[in-house]
Amino acid sequence: MNMGESLTKVGVLGARGKLGSAIVAGLEQSEDVDVVARVGSADPLQALLDSGAEVAVDVTTPEAVMGNLEFCIAHGIHAVVGTTGFDEERLATVRGWLSDARGVGVLIAPNFSIGAILMMRFAVQAAPFFESVEIVELHHPTKADAPSGTARRTAELVAAARRDAGLGPVPDATSTQLDGARGAVVDGIHVHGLRIRGLVAHQEVVLGGVGETLTIRHDSLDRAGFVPGVLAAVRGVPGHPGLTVGLESYLDL
Amino acid sequence: MNMGESLTKVGVLGARGKLGSAIVAGLEQSEDVDVVARVGSADPLQALLDSGAEVAVDVTTPEAVMGNLEFCIAHGIHAVVGTTGFDEERLATVRGWLSDARGVGVLIAPNFSIGAILMMRFAVQAAPFFESVEIVELHHPTKADAPSGTARRTAELVAAARRDAGLGPVPDATSTQLDGARGAVVDGIHVHGLRIRGLVAHQEVVLGGVGETLTIRHDSLDRAGFVPGVLAAVRGVPGHPGLTVGLESYLDL
Amino acid sequence: MNMGESLTKVGVLGARGKLGSAIVAGLEQSEDVDVVARVGSADPLQALLDSGAEVAVDVTTPEAVMGNLEFCIAHGIHAVVGTTGFDEERLATVRGWLSDARGVGVLIAPNFSIGAILMMRFAVQAAPFFESVEIVELHHPTKADAPSGTARRTAELVAAARRDAGLGPVPDATSTQLDGARGAVVDGIHVHGLRIRGLVAHQEVVLGGVGETLTIRHDSLDRAGFVPGVLAAVRGVPGHPGLTVGLESYLDL
Amino acid sequence: MNMGESLTKVGVLGARGKLGSAIVAGLEQSEDVDVVARVGSADPLQALLDSGAEVAVDVTTPEAVMGNLEFCIAHGIHAVVGTTGFDEERLATVRGWLSDARGVGVLIAPNFSIGAILMMRFAVQAAPFFESVEIVELHHPTKADAPSGTARRTAELVAAARRDAGLGPVPDATSTQLDGARGAVVDGIHVHGLRIRGLVAHQEVVLGGVGETLTIRHDSLDRAGFVPGVLAAVRGVPGHPGLTVGLESYLDL
Repeated sequence: MNMGESLTKVGVLGARGKLGSAIVAGLEQSEDVDVVARVGSADPLQALLDSGAEVAVDVTTPEAVMGNLEFCIAHGIHAVVGTTGFDEERLATVRGWLSDARGVGVLIAPNFSIGAILMMRFAVQAAPFFESVEIVELHHPTKADAPSGTARRTAELVAAARRDAGLGPVPDATSTQLDGARGAVVDGIHVHGLRIRGLVAHQEVVLGGVGETLTIRHDSLDRAGFVPGVLAAVRGVPGHPGLTVGLESYLDL
Repeated sequence: MNMGESLTKVGVLGARGKLGSAIVAGLEQSEDVDVVARVGSADPLQALLDSGAEVAVDVTTPEAVMGNLEFCIAHGIHAVVGTTGFDEERLATVRGWLSDARGVGVLIAPNFSIGAILMMRFAVQAAPFFESVEIVELHHPTKADAPSGTARRTAELVAAARRDAGLGPVPDATSTQLDGARGAVVDGIHVHGLRIRGLVAHQEVVLGGVGETLTIRHDSLDRAGFVPGVLAAVRGVPGHPGLTVGLESYLDL
Repeated sequence: MNMGESLTKVGVLGARGKLGSAIVAGLEQSEDVDVVARVGSADPLQALLDSGAEVAVDVTTPEAVMGNLEFCIAHGIHAVVGTTGFDEERLATVRGWLSDARGVGVLIAPNFSIGAILMMRFAVQAAPFFESVEIVELHHPTKADAPSGTARRTAELVAAARRDAGLGPVPDATSTQLDGARGAVVDGIHVHGLRIRGLVAHQEVVLGGVGETLTIRHDSLDRAGFVPGVLAAVRGVPGHPGLTVGLESYLDL
Repeated sequence: MNMGESLTKVGVLGARGKLGSAIVAGLEQSEDVDVVARVGSADPLQALLDSGAEVAVDVTTPEAVMGNLEFCIAHGIHAVVGTTGFDEERLATVRGWLSDARGVGVLIAPNFSIGAILMMRFAVQAAPFFESVEIVELHHPTKADAPSGTARRTAELVAAARRDAGLGPVPDATSTQLDGARGAVVDGIHVHGLRIRGLVAHQEVVLGGVGETLTIRHDSLDRAGFVPGVLAAVRGVPGHPGLTVGLESYLDL
């Protein structure tokens, strides 16, 4: 962070959580961003106004995020949202708020990891060219859900890309199996979840055709890996008024 | 194959099949083995006697193998068996035949791949030192069973090693999951099977503890990979009278 | 191959070689292609005309290919060329021939593997987003050159993508090293070549930034893996008059 | 840590460093160890005596470690040493001190990672069975030396295992290469070092024979990964009087 005039003033909501702290620490090292407000769950949103924040980064909870967004939009503060739980209804509500606040941008980003975004993008690009594709995700054993949200999302995107390309079902001659041996099936795509102590968050997309395979693997080893994505979001949101879902829209791919 | 006097004379039963042909081709390139009989399903076993075979390699079918073994043992021919389907009853029958034929060796080898045998061995050796372990096997999509026999066997061996070391269940906090997402469970060990066009036969054992993981991966890319194991078996069987199960007993590990 | 009227008639030049035989076998299984001529090094090119070939696939030698191309272009036969050795001078010569043969297409394809093409494409797309990138290629130990042509090409493309994105040199604090420990350096990108018995042709591009890595791996396990690329080339070349370098131009990426 | 009577009293030398802090934190979570002294570079060794430490863990510097060891041995305190820089001369000195202190155990452990130790062990066990073997190590780009000490050690051990098994040089037909493309050569074994932002410390040993490969990979993701090895050392050292080099001697492999 330096003192140039073009610094973007950022307030972080959820700044006391693990992810929030990592994001604050990361943003503070950036040369074009100034973290002007660190708002915890007990702090008033007024801090955003007092500090002159231009962009709010929300990494709070599904319970808190809608109130935060309504406040930001009403006060002309752009918002970058990493909090989960956005269904169609919530997106419609946000769009409604934004229709009265032209010029304000909101980015809902289910994933700030640029590596994960690229992995999904490449899986979708490659899918039409391969007869087979499966997904393996590997996480620490304290994770509650299986498969991971990213793996499910990847499967849905890959399945859609195969349909668009006119591909039929993946080949699979399995006739006798132990329950679960072929993984979960999401939109026709097999997804496997491993839980291993020592791992953080990892995913592999394996594509194969006659004589060759292509494997795309993402390894997330540290929360700090989210910082470049948050930075790209903070830099991009003022130039993208209205609602955007997915950081990939901001990346020059 | 050369003409030295110490050549072991080998007859291959099932010599016309894919695996049998590959084994014949491989043995013929060895310097200490002479393939003296190539017996197909329609050929008489008498060919073994006529050719003076000292060792028979049986890669036939579960239907044919017991008759072949009875014949070999009765005529003092050592046998190396890659054919599947040996349960306790069959093993007991073979032991009975061998009790009247001291000096004759029979090796029942569920797996001739030295790489696969080492993978299982290392998984067992490492198991006591890691809190987590899971198995991923990857095969071509025309395979009928899932998980593979090797993966099931690895899981059983690893589970036993963990019990012996006093380890409890693997850690797993999964509370919500799609059916199959965590794979099949064999003796408490999670096993995942992928079916991908372009692949042959592959397996990965992933072990993990706080801060580190150890991965042991075997890739079988060609049937020719079985030849060194068959050779080790052919060389070893005359010196191992009686019944042996598993090629690993012959390897100097 | 079926008997429909829309079959493309293809002649294969170099049809008796290993790659040529695999391509003939592969094309013969396609439903929209009819292999009408299989031309070996001793056979006359006239066979292309006699058989009515519309597209020639050339997998011959640097010595033979230019004569073949001149013949094809002069007779209005589209050409798909997998033969290596095309420098700027040769490309200029081909362009000259094509200027008198409007409507005829020639594709010079250094690589028919769609997996390898996608690997290179994805490496280039990802390069601007990661501070570090290195390339590992793994081949059978009878390969004469190191690193492989594909690895060098990937390094050059990745280096260019980094320059375009304004990235500086990759970070590397190595101050003491054994000769060769950090690999070969191609346009500033470190490239490592392994030679391992049992392998065929494999490449991994490892990209990394703070907290995360992205790995793109291509495994070529069998010559048959080139067939889909050759098919895409055969289907695409009539619609791409003039000279095209690189199959990627035909793929809908 | 609980209050049972069988607790081993441990003093940590170098307790304020990154590794030392992680070890203190890890030991404090163990149920059979009591950390009674945390000694920094400015603190007197007397703290070991005052606290009644039975075992000292030394993770200091090559400059400090010999003085620390002389003190410990003289006072009958067992020592576990992770500090580097032990050549034959230093080992001889320590053996001399120990000859006057029967019953005292010293373990010099170049590596506390059980995963790394197993990787090396398995590489050595597998080496006689494969024609080819190479080593790839991957680290963060702030590492000063290439290849890593663990990779060099693995190469030496694997080379010795090959010699003992009567294997000749690894096959390699490379005739034209860019400088460094085939890596560094340690005792005839090719070793490749990657430096990638986002990585911590990783190594892969790739072994191959006709038709199959075996890959052993160790990923160290966090300093906490050293704690189980330190614990095994602390528990083992009182029962191993005299000098031991390498934690593997304590593991039941």
